[in-house]
Amino acid sequence: MITLTTDFGLKAPYVGEMKGAILSINPEVELIDITHSITRHSILEGSFVMEQIVKYYPKGTIHVGVIDPGVGTSRRALIIEGSQFLIVPDNGLATLPLKHITPKAAYEIDIGKMEGIIGRKISTTFHGRDVFGPAAALLELGYEPSRLGEEIDMESIIKLDLKPKKSGDAWLLKVIYIDEFGNVILGLEDYEKPTYIEVKSIRIPYKDTYGEVGKGELLALPGSHDYLEIAVNQGSAAEILEVNVGDELEVKLVY
Amino acid sequence: MITLTTDFGLKAPYVGEMKGAILSINPEVELIDITHSITRHSILEGSFVMEQIVKYYPKGTIHVGVIDPGVGTSRRALIIEGSQFLIVPDNGLATLPLKHITPKAAYEIDIGKMEGIIGRKISTTFHGRDVFGPAAALLELGYEPSRLGEEIDMESIIKLDLKPKKSGDAWLLKVIYIDEFGNVILGLEDYEKPTYIEVKSIRIPYKDTYGEVGKGELLALPGSHDYLEIAVNQGSAAEILEVNVGDELEVKLVY
Amino acid sequence: MITLTTDFGLKAPYVGEMKGAILSINPEVELIDITHSITRHSILEGSFVMEQIVKYYPKGTIHVGVIDPGVGTSRRALIIEGSQFLIVPDNGLATLPLKHITPKAAYEIDIGKMEGIIGRKISTTFHGRDVFGPAAALLELGYEPSRLGEEIDMESIIKLDLKPKKSGDAWLLKVIYIDEFGNVILGLEDYEKPTYIEVKSIRIPYKDTYGEVGKGELLALPGSHDYLEIAVNQGSAAEILEVNVGDELEVKLVY
Repeated sequence: MITLTTDFGLKAPYVGEMKGAILSINPEVELIDITHSITRHSILEGSFVMEQIVKYYPKGTIHVGVIDPGVGTSRRALIIEGSQFLIVPDNGLATLPLKHITPKAAYEIDIGKMEGIIGRKISTTFHGRDVFGPAAALLELGYEPSRLGEEIDMESIIKLDLKPKKSGDAWLLKVIYIDEFGNVILGLEDYEKPTYIEVKSIRIPYKDTYGEVGKGELLALPGSHDYLEIAVNQGSAAEILEVNVGDELEVKLVY
Repeated sequence: MITLTTDFGLKAPYVGEMKGAILSINPEVELIDITHSITRHSILEGSFVMEQIVKYYPKGTIHVGVIDPGVGTSRRALIIEGSQFLIVPDNGLATLPLKHITPKAAYEIDIGKMEGIIGRKISTTFHGRDVFGPAAALLELGYEPSRLGEEIDMESIIKLDLKPKKSGDAWLLKVIYIDEFGNVILGLEDYEKPTYIEVKSIRIPYKDTYGEVGKGELLALPGSHDYLEIAVNQGSAAEILEVNVGDELEVKLVY
Repeated sequence: MITLTTDFGLKAPYVGEMKGAILSINPEVELIDITHSITRHSILEGSFVMEQIVKYYPKGTIHVGVIDPGVGTSRRALIIEGSQFLIVPDNGLATLPLKHITPKAAYEIDIGKMEGIIGRKISTTFHGRDVFGPAAALLELGYEPSRLGEEIDMESIIKLDLKPKKSGDAWLLKVIYIDEFGNVILGLEDYEKPTYIEVKSIRIPYKDTYGEVGKGELLALPGSHDYLEIAVNQGSAAEILEVNVGDELEVKLVY
């Protein structure tokens, strides 16, 4: 089973080309579209989506993620092996899903070897079709990752810095995702539930569900993804707080 | 075979999570995306789309529909068994597809039982992933619906009131769907073809195809879905008539 | 394996209905969504997307394309047999993918026969569901194309005129595709690399990658699809040049 998470969009032929490259190698494989509408080049958004996904897939699932602004440069193409597999560019995309797959080894895909295997020149602009997809198809066929590249030090994999930082009695937290309703998801897990939080001098009550505040009012809550979330009942917290994915917010938790 | 009709959108991880929850239980199942772009919380639009679908799927197909504004409240989660299966919240979504599956029994899914089966706490906000999807995966594996919940009275299932009503010599008809081109689909089937219809004091000729009126002109016609439809040749009837899904229109059929 | 390329959009029930019609005939078939977001009625855009696709699919793949403004008229419904199959309306859609499948025979689908096989009346407005999809399902089951219709002269298939024409010392080239980033793809292949090109009195340097010109600047380059492409580094060439799919541009290649 191979899942696909990309920023290719749904109009262009790119998703179809990548699927074809996979199916040409392994016509029996089951392909699962996660999304092809990650904001273009947003590694953080892609990493969050891949994290949510890996929690719900069976052992051995192969997750291909292609948000790849550095394609054509010397950034590495990775296979990370654990309870599930990640096949991604080495640009931070692995950061969040990596936490859930008990990784045991990582490999740098050898572009020369892949060229030999797929039997055509590898494009400098489209590794989803020519490298990541075919590598997934081969793993699913039973290839050992070591046949596709050299093992590398797990510690050398690039990680996004999303750790909460202390700033006086507040936290500096990264906005790691904003969903279609404008709910703001912050990089803080495993916290004790506060009474309210303070952001940009606004006091925001901490509740369990949207319905516990009036229409149009802000609330903080435990999201379904374990991160601290700020929302507005039937409105957009991202608009009210004027934040974007990747911003840092100073947040005080008050008990 | 399991079909999926939701209002989750194509950008967020929700569709991918639901697919993962299904595939974790039943990795062999064939998943068919119908649409994930139902207007958020529009039960009527979802019901119309599910009705169109069930007409074309083979016996035994399991149709999962998740348009679920009441998730987390006491609304029931249903399995309806007939020539095909519907797995939906009890909020009216079943109304239209129900007409085509010769229903023979209905069940209320037991959330406690599902929690035992899937082996994790059921979210209060995401029953697509934690209840409806897994129930479908289990049915496809051959579980009897009675293992997933108690049989309930078929008459107790909530239905949307879409029946045409008489208003003098006219009908009061519900707008049950508006497609991407602005064609307006009305809740009237099995009528005799009129010469023209009257809506909002506009006389609209009844024709067989769009091309029989001039560009920009209104016409009524038998839609491909058996309902009375109002369209504009190369234009939007919904804009000209200023109507939305769920509105009621007074319509006179003239012979 | 059946791929699907249409202009049906992702919100309406049409894609789901077509899949159901296919799966009712052949429940085991693997369905691959290419895109359902071709610009409505844009045969040229659909033809370009199908061309890109066929390059990457295995022998025997059946490609269904439904961009079909002439549905309900006397335009023919085609099966084209080669290393892969195309099932498309005879309106020019086959033009570009045809170049890559080594075609050996073509057939006009017999609507009467299809009606007998699918056992219901064929809609005058939806041949994707009632003709093209079912024909693909039957081919995949092993039906000979000759059981579905009469063989026709390959030369009689309608082709779009996309050939470059000489205009003095310049070329008249068709804009055959514009991608989501505004990159303009022109109907010229197999040319010798120029130093620069001239379009609308603008001198545009010919480079290998976007990064070789400044942000916001025009460049010409060999696209990943073998056609001459005009792009803007981090901008939209289509906006700057004010062109649309189907336009003709006078282009001078200077060495």
